[in-house]
Amino acid sequence: MADDASPGELTHFDGAGAAHMVDVAAKPETPRMARARARVRMAPATLTKIEAGALGKGDVLGVARLGGISGAKQTATQIPLCHPVRITAVTIEFEIDAELPGVVVEATVEAVDRTGPEMEAMIAASTAALTIYDMCKAIDRGIEVVDLHLVEKRGGKSGHWLRDSK
Amino acid sequence: MADDASPGELTHFDGAGAAHMVDVAAKPETPRMARARARVRMAPATLTKIEAGALGKGDVLGVARLGGISGAKQTATQIPLCHPVRITAVTIEFEIDAELPGVVVEATVEAVDRTGPEMEAMIAASTAALTIYDMCKAIDRGIEVVDLHLVEKRGGKSGHWLRDSK
Amino acid sequence: MADDASPGELTHFDGAGAAHMVDVAAKPETPRMARARARVRMAPATLTKIEAGALGKGDVLGVARLGGISGAKQTATQIPLCHPVRITAVTIEFEIDAELPGVVVEATVEAVDRTGPEMEAMIAASTAALTIYDMCKAIDRGIEVVDLHLVEKRGGKSGHWLRDSK
Amino acid sequence: MADDASPGELTHFDGAGAAHMVDVAAKPETPRMARARARVRMAPATLTKIEAGALGKGDVLGVARLGGISGAKQTATQIPLCHPVRITAVTIEFEIDAELPGVVVEATVEAVDRTGPEMEAMIAASTAALTIYDMCKAIDRGIEVVDLHLVEKRGGKSGHWLRDSK
Amino acid sequence: MADDASPGELTHFDGAGAAHMVDVAAKPETPRMARARARVRMAPATLTKIEAGALGKGDVLGVARLGGISGAKQTATQIPLCHPVRITAVTIEFEIDAELPGVVVEATVEAVDRTGPEMEAMIAASTAALTIYDMCKAIDRGIEVVDLHLVEKRGGKSGHWLRDSK
Amino acid sequence: MADDASPGELTHFDGAGAAHMVDVAAKPETPRMARARARVRMAPATLTKIEAGALGKGDVLGVARLGGISGAKQTATQIPLCHPVRITAVTIEFEIDAELPGVVVEATVEAVDRTGPEMEAMIAASTAALTIYDMCKAIDRGIEVVDLHLVEKRGGKSGHWLRDSK
Repeated sequence: MADDASPGELTHFDGAGAAHMVDVAAKPETPRMARARARVRMAPATLTKIEAGALGKGDVLGVARLGGISGAKQTATQIPLCHPVRITAVTIEFEIDAELPGVVVEATVEAVDRTGPEMEAMIAASTAALTIYDMCKAIDRGIEVVDLHLVEKRGGKSGHWLRDSK
Repeated sequence: MADDASPGELTHFDGAGAAHMVDVAAKPETPRMARARARVRMAPATLTKIEAGALGKGDVLGVARLGGISGAKQTATQIPLCHPVRITAVTIEFEIDAELPGVVVEATVEAVDRTGPEMEAMIAASTAALTIYDMCKAIDRGIEVVDLHLVEKRGGKSGHWLRDSK
Repeated sequence: MADDASPGELTHFDGAGAAHMVDVAAKPETPRMARARARVRMAPATLTKIEAGALGKGDVLGVARLGGISGAKQTATQIPLCHPVRITAVTIEFEIDAELPGVVVEATVEAVDRTGPEMEAMIAASTAALTIYDMCKAIDRGIEVVDLHLVEKRGGKSGHWLRDSK
Repeated sequence: MADDASPGELTHFDGAGAAHMVDVAAKPETPRMARARARVRMAPATLTKIEAGALGKGDVLGVARLGGISGAKQTATQIPLCHPVRITAVTIEFEIDAELPGVVVEATVEAVDRTGPEMEAMIAASTAALTIYDMCKAIDRGIEVVDLHLVEKRGGKSGHWLRDSK
Repeated sequence: MADDASPGELTHFDGAGAAHMVDVAAKPETPRMARARARVRMAPATLTKIEAGALGKGDVLGVARLGGISGAKQTATQIPLCHPVRITAVTIEFEIDAELPGVVVEATVEAVDRTGPEMEAMIAASTAALTIYDMCKAIDRGIEVVDLHLVEKRGGKSGHWLRDSK
Repeated sequence: MADDASPGELTHFDGAGAAHMVDVAAKPETPRMARARARVRMAPATLTKIEAGALGKGDVLGVARLGGISGAKQTATQIPLCHPVRITAVTIEFEIDAELPGVVVEATVEAVDRTGPEMEAMIAASTAALTIYDMCKAIDRGIEVVDLHLVEKRGGKSGHWLRDSK
């Protein structure tokens, strides 16, 4: 995943422009972390149903949380040039956003490896968001992910990175 | 995936609120289609590199296209309550959007089954978008998916559905 | 999965004793069902914690249910000679058994195919049971599955089969 | 897999009761081992056929052994909150038990990681047992797993654990 | 897999040269078969060990047979643009060829679908061959697959095809 | 994968002839490399089409390259007794061989682990070769892999190994 690359080059291609899996063998194995966020907009009535389920019956967010964790573990078979990364922790958090209206998903993945879990965090957030879509699409097919991005990363040569809030 | 459900209920839960995989055995096996779209915003310099690659060296979109197609085939192991669906075709199209600036991904999945490939199309679009992120994040970690939604579906009891354009 | 085999022969081997995947092409594609049960015995204090979680915090059975459903979808890659089967529904039910003490898991899988979902039901029940083990083993490593068996099957040439209750 | 957790808490849930993959980054990477056992009861005639096959034609136990080893490698995609574990060895042993009557499966998994391979051993034993079921169900649908439990574990902060024999 | 394509065009690309999964929805679902062969050359001493194992201890070919069958079931996740195909039977046969010297692998896959199992047969044969390599490479690293090709296919619009023997 | 085994024994079997996954826990984790080659023979007209595609439309080799990289990551679920290996780099190179006529595939896999990536390199080369077959079989069903072998390995107790060129 080449999170330590010098800026300016697309590291997934060699000099001839051929795609490859970037060599990370020389990097030290260190603790790394990445955090991604997805915002899911829906009809107010759909959000009301999700909030009701959180009380114990029809727990959409409980299913989506497990979807996100399973998704993180499948990242290397999902993203063509991504390295397998040794995940040490995955956390998925949800926040109800009445103004959106919808749900904000935040996925945090930790790893001890030679490259960081940015893609694992992005896949975890998107899979949790799409699991919400799957469970609610029968009543609200127009649900949309209105934002999906990396929020923060730690570890590796490039160190700490925090997205500018807007 | 219960695309024929009557509106108003969350079909992935039974009367007691327990999650299950919805019974689709009684539905007829028919041709179905779903189309999803993701818009990926990035720095102008990143988009310029992607456009250059399309000319033959460092083909980011060629890799992302295959990421999307592979993603579609892994949908049932990615989304917890999703049925395995018999995919008959997958197409991923890209459009350069200089104003975004970025890339618009459109994924079309066709299937012959008792439920439709909406989730396959959504996963295909999001995996293609995240593959673009993976390949460009070394030069532009702030790339974001600014929209991911279903555009159209055909087939099944609920018939044709087309997203309102805004 | 050869559920229609004539009794007396191990159908997964040819005349020379070599393992193969049994030919089912000539069988009609019909609705089929299988139901399996696992009983999980644990310390009374562990069962008390599981029952408390069912009320909304620390929902062990909610996670185990999704483990069982995902397990059913992975059966063909788990059991060497098993056919891929077109699953149309999966349900996992739990019953608290204070006398065991423990949890009774019942997994029902439906399919429309040329062979039945017996193995899918068995894997669903065992995966749900082992997910309970995974979540509780930090407090009760001695938890055991004291029984795992097929309860019922319907469909196919051999028709309805119901386990003798004892 | 949190094999070093202090007893009394369900470590797979956070303070709010939400499921997560437990953080193991701070644990040392050490050699660990786990051993699990499954007992499979069957009709005497079925056991006779299995014993005959061991002599070279229709080797049910040879297939079941490979089912168990493959199963161990798929544990992290099977059990929702389980960490991927670096397996260094898998052994599956069978013993014919004429009194059961049936087969006793013993699976030993070794790993070098921050958490132990208990779930890998449990999945290996259950998959081997269910592979026996798959191969013999055409002649004996009533075969049952009458016991599945952890026998022993070594390594990690909680050290050596041996099941009380009864 | 487009086995019915008119000759002369690379059907996995659209008019603009973009890769896609070919649309097979309009084709009838019919029984189809494909047979592939791999020849594995090795040192005479290695072949002697394999032949000895076939008698019951260290059964290399028994393991390779299961590798081939599992490989067939994983074809759609292995080959980027390949459709998932409904496999109804898989058979792997081995022949000792003292003159090669080595083992000839023949994999036959049957399916009922809109496209044929050619790739499944090719993957089954190559995986069985590479499993032989895996098991014997510690004593004979120079083992090579000297030929891997399709032998025969049946079904679909293009009908029966038999390789010219040379 | 036992690349350090003493010659003369089939290390994937124990003393009784039962298959197992070899214990590698005592080996040091070191950088290792393996390189494999596949030669794919085809009709001259097919090779011409592939060469044309390399110029930007219908890029068969670009798709095959990604097939090979994905294949490398799936090795442990493909080869029954193979250890999961921590891959740090994968490169797939193609050379047009007008005399063959056809394409020479060379796959190089690097890893930091207790055993080497020989099987990963062999699977990467064969999957890339079979992806070429998949994409061209509609116009040339007789394409064959005329050679697939290990070329070189480095690392581990057995050190450097280079195939004799002939």
